[in-house]
Amino acid sequence: MTTASDTPALNIALLGGGTVGSQVARILTEDAASLTGRIGAELNLTGIFVRNPQATRDFQLPSEYYSDDVDEVMDGADIVVELIGGIEPARELILKAISQGANVVTGNKELLATHGNELYEAAAQAGVQLSFEASVAGAIPILRPLRDSLSGDKITRIMGIVNGTTNYILDQMDSTGASFNDALAEAQRLGYAEADPAADVEGQDAAAKVAILAHLAFHAPFTLDQVYTEGITDVSDLDHKSAAEAGYIIKLLAIAEQLEDPEGVVLRVHPTLLPREHPLASVRGAYNAVFVEAENVDELMFYGPGAGGSATASAVMGDVMSIAKRRLRGGPGRTHTARRELECLDIGESTTRYMVVVRAADASGVLAKVAGTFADHGVSIKSMNQTPDEASSDDEKTALLAFITHRAKESQLAQTLEATKGLDVVNEVLSVMRVEGK
Amino acid sequence: MTTASDTPALNIALLGGGTVGSQVARILTEDAASLTGRIGAELNLTGIFVRNPQATRDFQLPSEYYSDDVDEVMDGADIVVELIGGIEPARELILKAISQGANVVTGNKELLATHGNELYEAAAQAGVQLSFEASVAGAIPILRPLRDSLSGDKITRIMGIVNGTTNYILDQMDSTGASFNDALAEAQRLGYAEADPAADVEGQDAAAKVAILAHLAFHAPFTLDQVYTEGITDVSDLDHKSAAEAGYIIKLLAIAEQLEDPEGVVLRVHPTLLPREHPLASVRGAYNAVFVEAENVDELMFYGPGAGGSATASAVMGDVMSIAKRRLRGGPGRTHTARRELECLDIGESTTRYMVVVRAADASGVLAKVAGTFADHGVSIKSMNQTPDEASSDDEKTALLAFITHRAKESQLAQTLEATKGLDVVNEVLSVMRVEGK
Repeated sequence: MTTASDTPALNIALLGGGTVGSQVARILTEDAASLTGRIGAELNLTGIFVRNPQATRDFQLPSEYYSDDVDEVMDGADIVVELIGGIEPARELILKAISQGANVVTGNKELLATHGNELYEAAAQAGVQLSFEASVAGAIPILRPLRDSLSGDKITRIMGIVNGTTNYILDQMDSTGASFNDALAEAQRLGYAEADPAADVEGQDAAAKVAILAHLAFHAPFTLDQVYTEGITDVSDLDHKSAAEAGYIIKLLAIAEQLEDPEGVVLRVHPTLLPREHPLASVRGAYNAVFVEAENVDELMFYGPGAGGSATASAVMGDVMSIAKRRLRGGPGRTHTARRELECLDIGESTTRYMVVVRAADASGVLAKVAGTFADHGVSIKSMNQTPDEASSDDEKTALLAFITHRAKESQLAQTLEATKGLDVVNEVLSVMRVEGK
Repeated sequence: MTTASDTPALNIALLGGGTVGSQVARILTEDAASLTGRIGAELNLTGIFVRNPQATRDFQLPSEYYSDDVDEVMDGADIVVELIGGIEPARELILKAISQGANVVTGNKELLATHGNELYEAAAQAGVQLSFEASVAGAIPILRPLRDSLSGDKITRIMGIVNGTTNYILDQMDSTGASFNDALAEAQRLGYAEADPAADVEGQDAAAKVAILAHLAFHAPFTLDQVYTEGITDVSDLDHKSAAEAGYIIKLLAIAEQLEDPEGVVLRVHPTLLPREHPLASVRGAYNAVFVEAENVDELMFYGPGAGGSATASAVMGDVMSIAKRRLRGGPGRTHTARRELECLDIGESTTRYMVVVRAADASGVLAKVAGTFADHGVSIKSMNQTPDEASSDDEKTALLAFITHRAKESQLAQTLEATKGLDVVNEVLSVMRVEGK
């Protein structure tokens, strides 16, 4: 595991031997010659910290690589790759690596979305690099383009499909008419969803990722608890049908947008209607994509696999190689400390469009009453589509009215809905969903 | 134009005041405060080299910015931004900037695809940085992800829609049934195509870009003249119809792929059939996208505007900001010199699928004869679709047979076509197009 040649070598300690860790170990050993050829240095995997060194793994190295003694594994490391996940001991181990002068690569979204600033500042103070491309949208190179390629532009909005599980489920519901529960069961059967799918379907995973994206896009620190989060567990068959009839598809979007008045950022994760011709609408199955709007570049999209051992390992290796190249050239690492204060605003300040589906009396004058109520609260209607109501009876004739509004504030919509529910011609508000895309 | 504050400042000389140059000048002056806030240094636009300082421009700065004396403009520059285009004097000016110790940002694809290596080596020797994100796919951040994010993976293939003009024309032909000439005229009317559209429609523009992409993806130098290039001028109505009937769409793709046996790279630009569900198939109008296949990451796509002043200026500014940040941190620039020898192979070595449309006798046994001829040459047929032939007459009943093959070598296909043309039941081979995508 050491080299006697003249080629410079960097020692790499790997923390974690799971799906992604195993693939990083495979690439570092199987592709060693090719990697060395590309950067002119050996990347020397010195050890892998695991809880149980005797366990069998997807990719198995000789037993001397594995150790449950983390100090031993991290000793003398130039780069520590943290792929344990979770808050502790990951946080503690990364801080320890930094204090030892090691550069760190991590894919730990949960940790970065809660304790990111502590880690970025520790790395900046120690003059080491902390890289985390794999933490958002798996293998898609999105963090580096946000930080570097778009650094001369002004990002106004990011919309991401950053959770493959929910995208798979919504895609199944849309394309096969499956219920949420059936689509979830299928996703679990295929390994796209975990036995306990809460973090995915309730939107927490996407919320962590949008906090990290927003930090890099807006140069200010944000945390998971600042993200307004709605999952997909309540998305109904009626939502899908109404969306499809109006030419839209439902996606769980993670959105970070900068507002001018009041100045600040809104972070939100929720099921969202997108026009079928929007680039994000064609992201199917468990794929991820991040759509970026910026002042000069207009719009960009980055698409690829959002998970998977070898795909995520590719992103980890990109970070490892970048750090290695920088180490070999000399010069200080880059830092990610937040540069400015920027308030995180309540979702009530956010402006978007909406689909509102109501069950109302099937009689003349009803549309005028509902439209009038919307107008009274400053919400204007872009389109309306009436469909027969299966619950309609001879005693009480009802119809379903699906409205798509123009842009309005969340707070205005809330008032509009209250007033609409109070109308005598309206039986029920059945569905309210946000609509994005031009 | 100089600063008296304590904030460090970098001097930027701009060469060229056209569409992109004007937008770079606008961003550097209008967004100066915001850019300074982000990097902690002033980006000081010291002058703009133009042929005619008195001309009116899209974005006009005070007249003292403009000069036709390039030495004066470049004097004392930390970063020289070359947006003149063409080979000379751009090449000479970039070499001069490098020899003065300035870092260089350019969007000049033609120059890089012909004299790239000379420039990369000059920059490496002088220890300055030469960045060129804007040279390929306008504003889409593709070069940095290829170089950095995917540096730990092994790229096997790149397929790009990197010319907006041809994508617009093919999209119009596909969606409206327009002829090539009508679609070109419409593109010219809208400003998507130039009065002399040769460089776009004949594929030379895309060829320059794929040479640059291949250099970064495969770490070896390639030039424009190594790219097999076919434009879209011969794409016919029948090609579009046959493709559509088989579930495909025609795109002009710029492809760089690494072969194992014989080892090397094939670079090719040609109209290509893609399955309608392929991510590149949904890239409409004048948009660009680059699809990357790599061993670990599987597939990625980068999508965005391929041209336009402010969008391309955003990519230029990303390079300027990266250089500025590096200058402020200290440490040497990065170099792009090719690291290995890798042969550029003839397209005859390339393996792909094909659509072949023939006019043949409308009689029993014809399919068996054609299929037999294909099989004799090692080309196996995946699907066949027969359609009525408008040229069929009572004297001579003919039909159109559209075949989609499995993967075969270009050289095998050439032999197959020769033999097919010699069959007595085949009147004519009407269309031959390459097919990509799974």
